[in-house]
Amino acid sequence: MTPTLELACDLIRRRSITPEDAGCMDLMIQRLKNIGFQTIRLRHGDTDNFWAVRNGQSAGPLLAFAGHTDVVPTGPEEHWCSPPFEPQIRDGFLYGRGAADMKGSLAAMVVACEAFVTEHPQHCGRIAFLVTSDEEGPAIDGTVKVIEWLQERGEQIDCCIVGEPSSSEHLGDVIKNGRRGSLGLALKVLGVQGHVAYPHLAKNPIHALAPALTELTTEKWDQGNQFFPATTFQVSNINGGTGVSNVIPAEVDLLCNWRFSTESSAEELELRTRRILDRYNLRYEADFNLSGTPFLTAGGPLVQAVQEAILTVTGIVTKLSTAGGTSDGRFIAPTGAQVVELGPVNATIHQIDECVKAQHLDQLKDIYREILRQLLASR
Amino acid sequence: MTPTLELACDLIRRRSITPEDAGCMDLMIQRLKNIGFQTIRLRHGDTDNFWAVRNGQSAGPLLAFAGHTDVVPTGPEEHWCSPPFEPQIRDGFLYGRGAADMKGSLAAMVVACEAFVTEHPQHCGRIAFLVTSDEEGPAIDGTVKVIEWLQERGEQIDCCIVGEPSSSEHLGDVIKNGRRGSLGLALKVLGVQGHVAYPHLAKNPIHALAPALTELTTEKWDQGNQFFPATTFQVSNINGGTGVSNVIPAEVDLLCNWRFSTESSAEELELRTRRILDRYNLRYEADFNLSGTPFLTAGGPLVQAVQEAILTVTGIVTKLSTAGGTSDGRFIAPTGAQVVELGPVNATIHQIDECVKAQHLDQLKDIYREILRQLLASR
Repeated sequence: MTPTLELACDLIRRRSITPEDAGCMDLMIQRLKNIGFQTIRLRHGDTDNFWAVRNGQSAGPLLAFAGHTDVVPTGPEEHWCSPPFEPQIRDGFLYGRGAADMKGSLAAMVVACEAFVTEHPQHCGRIAFLVTSDEEGPAIDGTVKVIEWLQERGEQIDCCIVGEPSSSEHLGDVIKNGRRGSLGLALKVLGVQGHVAYPHLAKNPIHALAPALTELTTEKWDQGNQFFPATTFQVSNINGGTGVSNVIPAEVDLLCNWRFSTESSAEELELRTRRILDRYNLRYEADFNLSGTPFLTAGGPLVQAVQEAILTVTGIVTKLSTAGGTSDGRFIAPTGAQVVELGPVNATIHQIDECVKAQHLDQLKDIYREILRQLLASR
Repeated sequence: MTPTLELACDLIRRRSITPEDAGCMDLMIQRLKNIGFQTIRLRHGDTDNFWAVRNGQSAGPLLAFAGHTDVVPTGPEEHWCSPPFEPQIRDGFLYGRGAADMKGSLAAMVVACEAFVTEHPQHCGRIAFLVTSDEEGPAIDGTVKVIEWLQERGEQIDCCIVGEPSSSEHLGDVIKNGRRGSLGLALKVLGVQGHVAYPHLAKNPIHALAPALTELTTEKWDQGNQFFPATTFQVSNINGGTGVSNVIPAEVDLLCNWRFSTESSAEELELRTRRILDRYNLRYEADFNLSGTPFLTAGGPLVQAVQEAILTVTGIVTKLSTAGGTSDGRFIAPTGAQVVELGPVNATIHQIDECVKAQHLDQLKDIYREILRQLLASR
C-alpha cells in the first residue's frame, strides 16, 4: 500500500454521507499541519468546511486544491461486492464509496503536498486547501460560504484545482476547464377553469401553452463556441388538471432548466423566454432561479501547467472539456481564479461498487505534485 | 297544493342520493298501477330501475317517459335556506334537492298520465315509464341495462320524453332534440429518461409531444351543422416528470375529451388523432373510450307534438338545442327511438338551494298531457 492509497482508505472508512464529514477533515488537517499549513475550520449550519494555507518564502501565485469529503448515499449496501465503507483493493481497483468522487483525489492532494514541501520547503507563492462536506447536497453552507469569508479578508485565489473525477477512460485524458451555467424556471400558466362540455366558458391553460411550448423546445438559444456546446433547454416536469376527466384546469405548472454556454447569460435567456410567452398572450407566473453561471478558464498558466504535468506523468495529451453537470468550481471561478477540474476516471461515481484504479491515485498524486512544481517550485 | 306539487314534495322527502332510490319508485309504481300500468322492477348491482307500461285499445306508438329518481349530493346542508330534503314553497318557488333535476318532472309525468288516462281510458298505442336511480352516477346499471332488457324482448320505444331540465329562462323555451357525443382519450407519450445536463442521451416526451399537442388543440374537427356546434377537443389533464428538476421524464400522460357533433364519428376522430400523433413520430399508447355517441331527433311526430304542446300551454315557440352535457337519452336514441328532453328551468340544478317555479311544474304536467293527447288520444 502506497501513502496515497493508505490515506484514501482511511478517508473511505469514515461514513461521511452529505452533510456529514465524519472526521475526514481532522485527518487531513493533522497531515497538513505537520507540513506547515495554517488551518481554520469554518462550520456553517450542518456543514463542515476548512481552509488551510502554507506560505512560501517568496512572492508567487496562490494555488488552492478544492474538494469535498462528503459522499452520496450507498444505495442498498447488500448489492455491493464489498461493504461501501470498508475499502478493498481487488484486481488492482480500490473499491468503496468516495473512491473516485472524491476521497481518492483528496488523498492524492495531501500526499502530493507532503512530497512537494519536502522537496521544496522554500517554495514560492502559497498552497491552500478549500474543503467542504456539502458538495453533493444543497451546497449552500459549503464552498460558497468559504469564498465569501475569503473575499471579506481580501484573499484572492489565483489558481484552483478541483479534484472532481474529470477523466473519461484514462487518468488525465479529460480535464474540465469550465462548466455550463444552470438556470431553472418554475412556470405557471393561468387559464379559467370550466367544464369540458362548455370550453367557450373556460380558457384551457394547456391549450394556451402548447404553441409557446413548441417554440421554447425548438428554440436555438445559441450555437455554443469552441469551449461550450450549444445551450440546451429541457422541461423536466409538467402538471395540470384536477384528476377528473371533465374539468378544464385553471392552471398548468412546469419546471424547466437551461444548461447554458458563455454565449448566453441568464438575463438574456429570461428575457427571450418572456418574449416568447408574451407573444402567445399567456397569463403566467415565471420564477427564474440561477443555480450557476457558466465559467471558463480558456487558457493561461494553470491550464498550461496541468497539461504539461499530465503529459509528463502519463504521456497523455489531455483534452479540455466543459461538459457535464455543475461543480463547486462555479463558486470559485467568479472571484477571478483560474479553475481546472482534474481527478480520476468518473465511470462508477454515484454507483454501486464505486471504484478507481489503484495505480491512478498514485499517478494523480504525481500529477498534482508536478503542477505544484510547475507553479510554485523554489527558484 | 296541486297534485303535481304534492307528489313532487313526497319524492323530494325521500333522500335518494345516487345510487339510492329511497322509496321513490314504490311511490311512482303504486300510482301507475292504480291507473292500469303493468310494472316490473329491474335492479342491477346497487341501482334500482323500473319499467311500466299501459296498453291502449288500438294500435299506435309506444311513448315512454324516462327519468331518474336519484339526486346529486347536497353540499353543506347548513348552507341551504331550508333543509334540502324538506321541500318548502317560498315566494312561488319549490325548494329542495331534486326539485328541478328531476323529481318535479317525475311528478308531472305521473299526474299527466293520471289526467290523460281519466280523459282517454281507451287511448291508442302504449304509455311507458323507464326510471333509474343511477343517472347522476356511473350510469352503468341504470338505463343502459333496461334498454338491453327491452331489446332482448323485442320492445321498441317509438317516442321518448326525458324529463331533464331543458328550459333556460322560461318553461318550454328550450328542448333538447339531441346531444353531442363524448369521446375520451388516455394518452401516454413515451420517451427516454435521462439527466437534464445530457439531453442528447435522453428523449424528452414533453418536447416530443409539444408540436402534436399544438396541432391537436388547434385542429378544426368539423364545422358542426344546423343542429350541432362544431366538435370540440379539450385536454383536461397533463402529467409528466419525476418531481425533481434535473431529470428528463420517461413519459407524459394526458386525459383528453371530444364533445362531437353528428358530422364526426368516434372512429374518424380516433383515426385523425393517430395520424397527427404518427406524423410527429411519437411513441405512444392511446386508449380511446367512447362514453356516448351523438344523437339527434331532427324532426318528426314527437318533436312536432312537443312543439305544439308547449305553444298550446305556454304560448312559447320552443327552441331546439343539442348543447350541454350527456343524458340517458344517449342510451335510448340508438335503439331508433325519437328522443326529446323536456323539463323545467335548469338554473339551479346541482346547486345549493335548488328550486323550481311551483307554477312551472303544473304547466309541465299540462304540456306532458298535451303531448299524450297529440300522440295517443283515442280516435
